[in-house]
Amino acid sequence: MSDTFAQIASSLISVARGLHARGWLLGTSGNLSAVVDRQPLSLAITPSGADKGELAAAQILLIDEHCKCIDQATLKLDNESARRVTAGASHPSQLVQEDLQLDPDDPQPELGNAQLVPGKPSDESPLHVAILKARGPGAVIHTHSVWATVLSDVHTLEGGVAIEGYEMLKGLHGVSTHLHREWIPIIDNSQDMPALANTINEVLAQYPFAHAFLLRRHGLYTWGRDLKEAKRHVEILEFLLEAAGRIRSSICGP
Amino acid sequence: MSDTFAQIASSLISVARGLHARGWLLGTSGNLSAVVDRQPLSLAITPSGADKGELAAAQILLIDEHCKCIDQATLKLDNESARRVTAGASHPSQLVQEDLQLDPDDPQPELGNAQLVPGKPSDESPLHVAILKARGPGAVIHTHSVWATVLSDVHTLEGGVAIEGYEMLKGLHGVSTHLHREWIPIIDNSQDMPALANTINEVLAQYPFAHAFLLRRHGLYTWGRDLKEAKRHVEILEFLLEAAGRIRSSICGP
Amino acid sequence: MSDTFAQIASSLISVARGLHARGWLLGTSGNLSAVVDRQPLSLAITPSGADKGELAAAQILLIDEHCKCIDQATLKLDNESARRVTAGASHPSQLVQEDLQLDPDDPQPELGNAQLVPGKPSDESPLHVAILKARGPGAVIHTHSVWATVLSDVHTLEGGVAIEGYEMLKGLHGVSTHLHREWIPIIDNSQDMPALANTINEVLAQYPFAHAFLLRRHGLYTWGRDLKEAKRHVEILEFLLEAAGRIRSSICGP
Amino acid sequence: MSDTFAQIASSLISVARGLHARGWLLGTSGNLSAVVDRQPLSLAITPSGADKGELAAAQILLIDEHCKCIDQATLKLDNESARRVTAGASHPSQLVQEDLQLDPDDPQPELGNAQLVPGKPSDESPLHVAILKARGPGAVIHTHSVWATVLSDVHTLEGGVAIEGYEMLKGLHGVSTHLHREWIPIIDNSQDMPALANTINEVLAQYPFAHAFLLRRHGLYTWGRDLKEAKRHVEILEFLLEAAGRIRSSICGP
Repeated sequence: MSDTFAQIASSLISVARGLHARGWLLGTSGNLSAVVDRQPLSLAITPSGADKGELAAAQILLIDEHCKCIDQATLKLDNESARRVTAGASHPSQLVQEDLQLDPDDPQPELGNAQLVPGKPSDESPLHVAILKARGPGAVIHTHSVWATVLSDVHTLEGGVAIEGYEMLKGLHGVSTHLHREWIPIIDNSQDMPALANTINEVLAQYPFAHAFLLRRHGLYTWGRDLKEAKRHVEILEFLLEAAGRIRSSICGP
Repeated sequence: MSDTFAQIASSLISVARGLHARGWLLGTSGNLSAVVDRQPLSLAITPSGADKGELAAAQILLIDEHCKCIDQATLKLDNESARRVTAGASHPSQLVQEDLQLDPDDPQPELGNAQLVPGKPSDESPLHVAILKARGPGAVIHTHSVWATVLSDVHTLEGGVAIEGYEMLKGLHGVSTHLHREWIPIIDNSQDMPALANTINEVLAQYPFAHAFLLRRHGLYTWGRDLKEAKRHVEILEFLLEAAGRIRSSICGP
Repeated sequence: MSDTFAQIASSLISVARGLHARGWLLGTSGNLSAVVDRQPLSLAITPSGADKGELAAAQILLIDEHCKCIDQATLKLDNESARRVTAGASHPSQLVQEDLQLDPDDPQPELGNAQLVPGKPSDESPLHVAILKARGPGAVIHTHSVWATVLSDVHTLEGGVAIEGYEMLKGLHGVSTHLHREWIPIIDNSQDMPALANTINEVLAQYPFAHAFLLRRHGLYTWGRDLKEAKRHVEILEFLLEAAGRIRSSICGP
Repeated sequence: MSDTFAQIASSLISVARGLHARGWLLGTSGNLSAVVDRQPLSLAITPSGADKGELAAAQILLIDEHCKCIDQATLKLDNESARRVTAGASHPSQLVQEDLQLDPDDPQPELGNAQLVPGKPSDESPLHVAILKARGPGAVIHTHSVWATVLSDVHTLEGGVAIEGYEMLKGLHGVSTHLHREWIPIIDNSQDMPALANTINEVLAQYPFAHAFLLRRHGLYTWGRDLKEAKRHVEILEFLLEAAGRIRSSICGP
């Protein structure tokens, strides 16, 4: 498992750096995750408060479905017993650390990229877990781009952004024609993560074919069968949102 | 032939990476090709579903005028006989593999950039071949930029975009003055590649001086005597389309 | 102290290069500083007239609270006595050089990045000192972005830009919800640095929760507990100003 | 002289690559020059038709005031006599090659960056010489940016773009306050280089304080005491033109 985790962590930081360079993860915003194990669920996820342009693999955290950190060191030391745990019936939450105390007044603790331990998983980890459980993808990426923010704002009343007729839509998994109509629901933003995770569950159930959703004035969530596909979905959706925004500006006026 | 192909493949990935960095090939969109041999026609082309920012030379495919892959390995093993084939009368389609089966539900097979074989040539290969046959260039590049998408949309009714009076036009082959008027036809997008190739043939015949065309809500196709010129045409046309779009926005209002 | 200064200087140029690449420090504009010592105050600051994309650590200057250069060479030679100065009661201004003569006709002396001595601290050093004294941060960054310039212009009459309801606001120190309303005051630009420093003092006192201010048609000033946080604030505020500007354009018209 | 020329050539390609990366020299557009000798005038200049993102120092040409190439090889072989020429009275045009024949149907000869000789100096060399003679700078840079193109178009009727009240103006040589009003004249574009050079002379005489001018629907010309200052002027003017363009869009509507 550790080798796989190391590879996934390395891929996560590589994708994160690229998206930061494009301006879609500025100011420690956004987060990325990828499934490490399905049964029981464990995922690699970016830490809270980290500069995505300077992320190191050692900062990537392994969490369980309750968003509790799984101690990599323990895993390594107990390598043998860990294998026995996986093979046997004991619950892997025995390997789980207490979650680090959240400080509501300081949502961006100054971890410093050099000061690697102990990191805290992204505050939005429950949203990643909700998506993983509802849709079963291999990776989830959440970006904060200017155009996603603009579109989530100017289309609030419609409750979503409809994108139809663009070839770029074919880059979304399972879409085979530009005639496809993608409805990207807009969900009201909230700081209550369990409540937001519930709303996301409902929206995903309501729009079973959606490849993504927007949190209002917040950003884009999308996912894919693996990190590669999730990254492709980010590029496609950010492109389409920018195009939709610019077309809107180009035909403004009475 | 193999050496030439290797050089061309290397140039293709270098140009692809640069255009991806500018945001003109996001999300595995777009494709590039360059002629390897004229008689009979063979061309190097980017594979379907590949991330253009991480393309490896080994992913570039060699296809014939029917868009069938020509097996490089066979070519190398049969190096001697291949030369004899070229020299003699036997048809090189003997060297052609069966095209890989298309899966209509999955237009972006997860090739993985590391998992190099067997790649599938771009779905739009017939469009490249159509342009090569109609105009005889040495290279064809198809980009998906935001501004090309916007312009192809807001100028649909006119059937094209007219660009006139810009110095940048002189970067198009054969144009010697900014007074030149370039008409970039807009062709309705389609998933029926043979039909689309036919339409492209008609449009190229109708506008014999056009250096490019737009597929509506899809992207830009342009070409050049060699890959260098095709890349120059991309930069010039993307620049002009962005300028046209921004001028339109700058004078909007009543 | 020298080691610390060297580390800080290295961090300053690294951050400066990144912000220059994003187009927020074009044409030698902008400046960055970080506190080296608190008691008495000394800070590392970028020199006047330097290209921030090609800045070398050796160009970073150490100044005191009067914006006078502290001679690094003297500090090194008098290492022993310097320690005695710090330990004892004598005022470190004994170590201070005469400020270099300003040439009002040439505010961007051709230092040349290779011609490292003697550099002149940024003309806006008094503004950095004013912020450091009023708010006590560890670092101050001043950028010149297109969107900050545009917003400071179109919102002049309101006296500031209100940004409310965006998740990105949580990246500002101490902000824990997107419901936060950030008021970014706009201060009239001036070439009279002592007068401008006074106005800044007044504005910072008037808006004790502000994380930043705009100089009209000039740029953004923000700060943080350390350089890392100041850089995060720059990315967040530049993002929010761009988003605010684009939303304004997207809903323009009657 | 050769060493100096080599250094200047190296600086020219470094600046050219940076400006190409920002999208201001796309598609082989634009050109850069720097003075090598004043008496008689010789300048290093970029070749016609070269991709500025892949320029090699060996492609930079040395020309005289008549835009004739000075043979570097001859200069090196005749090193001794060349010094005597400079010291003595014989005219250095003895060292000048015949200009390469222009092909009006192909203003962008496929030099290929690898195929370095014989390059042809930029078609706009006479404009560089005109500026050098009228103003005496050490370097001239001509960029093609989208915003310069847009502004030169929408302000045609006014005959120029007025930029006033921006701090960024202080980056222009000799400007010490943001209250400065910079008038950037717009000159009608032409393919008649001698005529255009004459018009430029008249405009430079009419606006003795101008730091730059725009060729309509073509691009920006600016200059500086050295290449460093010319590059700074490019960054400042491109920034100001973009800001002016975005402000215009932000306040559009009735």
